[in-house]
Amino acid sequence: MKKDKISGDLGGGGRSSYDFVRNILIPLFDNPYLSKLDDGAVFDINGTRFAFSTDTFVADPIFFPGGSIGDLAVNGTVNDISMCGAEPLYISTGLIIEEGFSMDKLKIILKDMKIAADNANVKIITGDTKVVPKGGVDKIFINTSGIGIVPENITVSCSNAKPGDKIILSGTIGDHGVAMLTCREGMEFETKIKSDTASLCNMVKNILPFGRSIHVLRDPTRGGAGTALNEIALKSQTGIFFNEKEIPVKKEVAGICEMLGLDPLYIANEGKLIAVVAPEAASEILKSIKNDLFGEDAAIIGEVVSDFSGQVVMKTGIGGRRIVDMLSGEQLPRIC
Amino acid sequence: MKKDKISGDLGGGGRSSYDFVRNILIPLFDNPYLSKLDDGAVFDINGTRFAFSTDTFVADPIFFPGGSIGDLAVNGTVNDISMCGAEPLYISTGLIIEEGFSMDKLKIILKDMKIAADNANVKIITGDTKVVPKGGVDKIFINTSGIGIVPENITVSCSNAKPGDKIILSGTIGDHGVAMLTCREGMEFETKIKSDTASLCNMVKNILPFGRSIHVLRDPTRGGAGTALNEIALKSQTGIFFNEKEIPVKKEVAGICEMLGLDPLYIANEGKLIAVVAPEAASEILKSIKNDLFGEDAAIIGEVVSDFSGQVVMKTGIGGRRIVDMLSGEQLPRIC
Repeated sequence: MKKDKISGDLGGGGRSSYDFVRNILIPLFDNPYLSKLDDGAVFDINGTRFAFSTDTFVADPIFFPGGSIGDLAVNGTVNDISMCGAEPLYISTGLIIEEGFSMDKLKIILKDMKIAADNANVKIITGDTKVVPKGGVDKIFINTSGIGIVPENITVSCSNAKPGDKIILSGTIGDHGVAMLTCREGMEFETKIKSDTASLCNMVKNILPFGRSIHVLRDPTRGGAGTALNEIALKSQTGIFFNEKEIPVKKEVAGICEMLGLDPLYIANEGKLIAVVAPEAASEILKSIKNDLFGEDAAIIGEVVSDFSGQVVMKTGIGGRRIVDMLSGEQLPRIC
Repeated sequence: MKKDKISGDLGGGGRSSYDFVRNILIPLFDNPYLSKLDDGAVFDINGTRFAFSTDTFVADPIFFPGGSIGDLAVNGTVNDISMCGAEPLYISTGLIIEEGFSMDKLKIILKDMKIAADNANVKIITGDTKVVPKGGVDKIFINTSGIGIVPENITVSCSNAKPGDKIILSGTIGDHGVAMLTCREGMEFETKIKSDTASLCNMVKNILPFGRSIHVLRDPTRGGAGTALNEIALKSQTGIFFNEKEIPVKKEVAGICEMLGLDPLYIANEGKLIAVVAPEAASEILKSIKNDLFGEDAAIIGEVVSDFSGQVVMKTGIGGRRIVDMLSGEQLPRIC
């Protein structure tokens, strides 16, 4: 079926997003940096390797339990740079504001950006502000782009997973998406679930000394952990096998997902990472991640296998096996 | 008067934009890169100086005589990098698309981005796509960020103008803004005016051999040439004196401006630059600019003076003198 209208799932981080990038953007823009399909592009200048990434945030609501579009925007790009195995240094900010938006709210959002930047030890050094007449944009959108440096002995990429590697998930999944959902208009859940929005750069910095034992880093944002694992399997041409029981999910998040028919595996996270690492270093890397402020629930959830290349298979809670595909369609719009 | 609601002029590139950046963003984000207030930030890593810039495009209409939001988005960031005296290398793209937008139009816009990138010899190496439910954004907005390298003997900045310097304007002003205006719904002008959207990186590349004789480069986009000259005067703490008669304006553009009560000095350009250069090199630099594809109408329009520091004074067509202030308010919304 020819799609002549853009649908929401094209930006949802699942199968349609993947197809759009692979079938339209990569052939058109045609360069080896983009076609690696990592969270950022890595390029070399005079022997120094740089990571460069961009992300636009259209979150609705703009204030939610655990954060705001401001810290989300800084953490998101800081994390994308970190997922290149890089230390983030500089951030740009592109604001698009609806005419009539509250100056006080804008100041709170900007303050949240500053706090997030300080926490990640990055500087916001350039920016642009557009104001659009009422109705042209819903409240405020924020683009951030960022630059970081990749240390010498680090090569992480979605295409680097190798059979035998262990897969570490740095904490509970689904918190961000469910927090966004439960605070939306019309929803009346009384929960204490907060977004997990956080900068992962310190967690990554602490494991970088493991060097080439770190094969893949990926933060499972839109599309969730299920989609991220599929991208790794596809790009690395390996299989991925994991155990449902090992996936950390908060009881309350699991409860709401069950009630609404949502799968936590496809719900966005904003402060979690998946690390695919050499088996001999796995337990030490896990220990380092668990020592991080945002890593206490980290777990080894599975491993990379040479069977069923390009696919992700889950051992279910009741002992069966099922294929976990990429997110198809869009679960929750404007989650980030 | 306390402004508690964001008004259009805050993003209009004139006085309000300048005040917002100076009074809110710079004190909050607090770093020397941002506070230089140039078109991009310049930072040093291992002895190489990089320029980093971002710009979001919310142009309405998205297709207009002479271009589209696609080439506008690439040229805009290429030019901001060039105005740092840098050679642009890599571009990121953040797309925000309204659900239901035409896939065919999206493909045309992406193709325009690719052509503009090829013309400027830059690569689009990383990106992000968000789709927002209908009504959340008007058609399509595009953020681009870019990275370039500043050659060793180049130091251009808005704060570098020196008394005696000559001011070169690279061509006719007002073309972009008037082209946008005349093709908007409800306007029925029969004109042949096209946007001047173009990449200025080759023009800049050709004058970079003049090294430290180039003091300031600025592209007069939102806010127009009048605002850009004011920013230079303010940041350099010098006066600027120019001759109205020397300002190149197309006859048709001047006519429409007169009819609508618009001042070409405040209308956005998307393919012009202002160069402030040492007097002894001015005629050679002008010659180089005139040799460029987009520089044939270039002219020396005035000079930097030690009188009336921080102000811009124009010798009018009838021989009088008047102060040219920054754009106050917003002339044309969603021009870029």
